[in-house]
Amino acid sequence: MMTPPEFLPALIRKTGNIVLATHVSPDGDALGSLLGFADILESMGKRVFRYVEQEVTPFYRFLPGSDRLRTGMEELDSFVRLAGDDVLGVSLDCGDRQRLGQNGPNLLRVRPFVVIDHHKGNNGFGDFSWIDSQRSSTGEMIFDLATALGQTVSKEAAICLYAAIVTDTGSFKYELTRPHTFDVARQLVELGVRPEFVAGHLYDNFTFGRLQLMQKVLSTLEIEDDGRIAIIRVTRKMLDQTGCTLVDTENLINLPRSVAVVQVAVFLKETGEDIVSVSLRAKDTCDVAEVAREFGGGGHRKAAGFRQSLTTMDEVRNRLLPVLKRKLSC
Amino acid sequence: MMTPPEFLPALIRKTGNIVLATHVSPDGDALGSLLGFADILESMGKRVFRYVEQEVTPFYRFLPGSDRLRTGMEELDSFVRLAGDDVLGVSLDCGDRQRLGQNGPNLLRVRPFVVIDHHKGNNGFGDFSWIDSQRSSTGEMIFDLATALGQTVSKEAAICLYAAIVTDTGSFKYELTRPHTFDVARQLVELGVRPEFVAGHLYDNFTFGRLQLMQKVLSTLEIEDDGRIAIIRVTRKMLDQTGCTLVDTENLINLPRSVAVVQVAVFLKETGEDIVSVSLRAKDTCDVAEVAREFGGGGHRKAAGFRQSLTTMDEVRNRLLPVLKRKLSC
Repeated sequence: MMTPPEFLPALIRKTGNIVLATHVSPDGDALGSLLGFADILESMGKRVFRYVEQEVTPFYRFLPGSDRLRTGMEELDSFVRLAGDDVLGVSLDCGDRQRLGQNGPNLLRVRPFVVIDHHKGNNGFGDFSWIDSQRSSTGEMIFDLATALGQTVSKEAAICLYAAIVTDTGSFKYELTRPHTFDVARQLVELGVRPEFVAGHLYDNFTFGRLQLMQKVLSTLEIEDDGRIAIIRVTRKMLDQTGCTLVDTENLINLPRSVAVVQVAVFLKETGEDIVSVSLRAKDTCDVAEVAREFGGGGHRKAAGFRQSLTTMDEVRNRLLPVLKRKLSC
Repeated sequence: MMTPPEFLPALIRKTGNIVLATHVSPDGDALGSLLGFADILESMGKRVFRYVEQEVTPFYRFLPGSDRLRTGMEELDSFVRLAGDDVLGVSLDCGDRQRLGQNGPNLLRVRPFVVIDHHKGNNGFGDFSWIDSQRSSTGEMIFDLATALGQTVSKEAAICLYAAIVTDTGSFKYELTRPHTFDVARQLVELGVRPEFVAGHLYDNFTFGRLQLMQKVLSTLEIEDDGRIAIIRVTRKMLDQTGCTLVDTENLINLPRSVAVVQVAVFLKETGEDIVSVSLRAKDTCDVAEVAREFGGGGHRKAAGFRQSLTTMDEVRNRLLPVLKRKLSC
């Protein structure tokens, strides 16, 4: 096992009430690490508040404990009031304080506040942090934290942590899939996780709408720079026509990314009135986190993104393309 | 590790010349287990003949040793002649003797002949066999055989065996992904395999044409029987327009199959002038092998198919649909 910093098990052991939070638009690693950790903490006799900014989509309801996620700030306030001084705030899988969402400032008022994360470029916020950008996922880190705490992981928590690892490794395909990642996966499966159950929920749980959305998004495919750049788009209209939300666009960027010659895949999303969100996925030759930072965003070398207001998809595309071409020609 | 039967390491140790073969149209497990095993045997000082019926597609050229695959029966004959009595034939990942292909009878003349496989329903052929239908892949079994032989697995062999496991588990998603599977994967990664390298070759090796084909095929989506049946089609024209062949349609049936409510996915393919091939994929509620047999085809419970001549896709669809609806209403 890979050991968390010493302060962390000690701090957890001595605290009775723990508030867990994660980033906005939480994915499988965000929710899986949060719910898995919550289960582990409750098995230690602690009171836990599972905070998310918005109701999670039915897609993630297979995660045990997802029905206990809470969105209310008032509920949080009364939890914290009741806890008095015996409280700890923890953010999981959240790369910076902004990504905690609109209630971030309130969450950070829970003190001490600890950050557990694996995002590169996370400089730490709150009072203490455990950040390891060499880890596949926050879920993997939480498993090691449970080991450091001497806690047995229940089957329910194991499902959550396994889903976290699967999400952030693309089912054991990405770079940070290390021997230790497989070792944790083995232990989680020994605890009762059925890989086909989790994969079925994460990958074989399409709706017809999502399939239709995939078709519409693929029809926007644009090939640039001799195929080294592939661009796809989703509009509000496509979402309306197919009864989908932005959540259903997740993973679609992997389609252009999977073309052998493509070095950078770009996904332009009309996320609101005059708001365009951009996801970037790269292979070895380009650091898209740098590109995203030029546009006020962030992320990892191979997976990054940013958001622009008061603009159109065409405008964003036209400003982004030269930057990407420049990067690729270096 | 999970131990192979005792006769096997003994037989291998005492033999100097080994002929390896696998099934026709070899996939990642067939080629990966064959090439990985060949490397292990050569590191033991043995002469190895790597037989496949046809040249493998460029898709699998990333497997170390794939350039040493041989298709010639004459070459095989002279290898066997030179070996005299000191020879062993081994078939890997091949469910029955027919699947060895047209040269199967010649291969089986190499005696003794051993069958190593994980396919359910393999009753064993040749002189000896090691068949374990609870294994994820033949590649996983070969790793355990190397351990039983006390052989270190080279990085090259590790890549082959890892690709074998990834192929047959759908990247650790299928039912037979067990703790031991993850344990073997961990060891292979420790031996130098980079998961993203193998996954990149197996999954991120699309062409733009294939992506365009996917879009066109998805645009034909037809939903029947309240969503329990989903039908997609590919025409000769779509293949021509996208520069694709029927090989590129592989796996596309998994798209409608991945819709949660779908019980049977149907893929109608215009395979020639007036010839329609039909692939069927089912979940738990329907035995599509029975349906395929009614149309002169065959297959497994969850994956079957048939072919019809002198007809159109519409005609086949109209005859098939009532049969499927009847099955699903039982």
